[in-house]
Amino acid sequence: MGDNHAPVTVIGLGLMGQALAAAFLKAGHRTTVWNRSAEKAEKLVSEGAVLAATPAEAVAASELLVVCVSTYDNLDGILDGLDEALKGKVLVNLTSGSSDQARVAAERFGKLGVKYLDGVIMITPPGIGAETSVLFYAGDEEVFEAHKSTLGLLGGGTTYLGADYAMPALYDVSLLGLMWGTFNAFLHGVAVVGTADVSAKTYLPWAHMWLDAIKMFTTDYANQIDAGDGEFPANDATLETHLEALKHLVHESEALGVDAELPKYSQNLMEKIIGQGHAKNSYAAMIKAFQKPQA
Amino acid sequence: MGDNHAPVTVIGLGLMGQALAAAFLKAGHRTTVWNRSAEKAEKLVSEGAVLAATPAEAVAASELLVVCVSTYDNLDGILDGLDEALKGKVLVNLTSGSSDQARVAAERFGKLGVKYLDGVIMITPPGIGAETSVLFYAGDEEVFEAHKSTLGLLGGGTTYLGADYAMPALYDVSLLGLMWGTFNAFLHGVAVVGTADVSAKTYLPWAHMWLDAIKMFTTDYANQIDAGDGEFPANDATLETHLEALKHLVHESEALGVDAELPKYSQNLMEKIIGQGHAKNSYAAMIKAFQKPQA
Repeated sequence: MGDNHAPVTVIGLGLMGQALAAAFLKAGHRTTVWNRSAEKAEKLVSEGAVLAATPAEAVAASELLVVCVSTYDNLDGILDGLDEALKGKVLVNLTSGSSDQARVAAERFGKLGVKYLDGVIMITPPGIGAETSVLFYAGDEEVFEAHKSTLGLLGGGTTYLGADYAMPALYDVSLLGLMWGTFNAFLHGVAVVGTADVSAKTYLPWAHMWLDAIKMFTTDYANQIDAGDGEFPANDATLETHLEALKHLVHESEALGVDAELPKYSQNLMEKIIGQGHAKNSYAAMIKAFQKPQA
Repeated sequence: MGDNHAPVTVIGLGLMGQALAAAFLKAGHRTTVWNRSAEKAEKLVSEGAVLAATPAEAVAASELLVVCVSTYDNLDGILDGLDEALKGKVLVNLTSGSSDQARVAAERFGKLGVKYLDGVIMITPPGIGAETSVLFYAGDEEVFEAHKSTLGLLGGGTTYLGADYAMPALYDVSLLGLMWGTFNAFLHGVAVVGTADVSAKTYLPWAHMWLDAIKMFTTDYANQIDAGDGEFPANDATLETHLEALKHLVHESEALGVDAELPKYSQNLMEKIIGQGHAKNSYAAMIKAFQKPQA
């Protein structure tokens, strides 16, 4: 453990698995790989990887097992019958899944005596190994610390989120949700200014400037939400002021023939929260539209 | 024109109008103010502003008239009967409204011989005068240039968008839409990680890091949209990959009791565009979900 060139096994050689194995190989680790269709290992083998003939061979080859397959169900299929062989191994599961799948897997592998870490990769395969690339992990802290330097080869932003196995999946979907929400609103804005023949590239620097302003606003909102006192002081603008401006966006969208469903969704949400007595509060009060209702 | 201390008139003394007048006063301009209820002028008068008794007096006092009232209709009411007095004046209209209202106002005032600029203010009153504060203007470029230094007192980001009077309103609502969309997705994410007792402040720096990544993605998408060739190459991820990950967010939200309407909206939109043959395209292809359908 902690050996700078300890053997590593990578199971699952999609584009991501190949990138993971390549990063370990490049750093001088003895890297064993396995994939259901062996041809995906060809390039890695030419670079020095060892191709395991079976999952059993792959598991036997290294203490550190890094798995990145398409689903948790596939993982179970691959490791079926290897309970004894897995005992004492470190299993780092980078398969995409939900927080409940991570918790179930952690419990099952834990019972087998496997040192289990669940992780998510916040970048696409070409980003593996870059200084700014983020990977989130959860599980036993000692296990993470013992393999941190090896796992750190996959990205400079390798981050331990705690013992709760749900964390990586929750951070993953939350950040991706921030991305889709921002993408959609960005594209809606591109469509609106596009009706006046403004190119996306012309609009882009203003959108980026505005995202920086949004960082400032959300910093204030995070503090207001964490305060938990329900005050939500309108340091920037009240919800009723937001709503008045939003109605302009709905109107413009409809008048210009740009799809208005997105601003109408926001309007319904603001009207709901204003109806709950938050007209004079900041936008942070909108957290109530998303949080699980208190029992 | 261009005189560094030319008289300025400010009509409308809400919080924003007061901030505008204060900025002109502070820079040494002879500043005349008018408001329907005169008591809103008291502080400004104590600082040296001249209170006009009537809109006619306010219009007569300066060549440069800056107007910030609650609606375009209110503006019409205030200036009613002053057609002759307005001839040759520069009317800078910072009243919130839609792009069609701006175009109608510009045409009407243009016929009266008024030099009309339409503008929007992208900050709250306390931001007036700051180096980073953005105000957008449209109208005749010579008129803007002649008064650029005076208008620049209101914010270092004073920007001319062109002759099309619709521009300021369209930029305004587009950027605000980006804000609401990003806010909603941020708050949804805070609610999701909050189910695992992660504070908003703990989540915040990751959200901010992610917004920086989103800037990179949107830069690529802007180029793809402007290319206009319908190629939308998936340099980062395909829409079908996005959709698979999005389903995890919908699942997590529902399982955790977090409102799932926002990710479901995104899911419907992605499925629609994938159904139009864009499964292997980048997220930029989603512009088709927002743009006015081609005739």
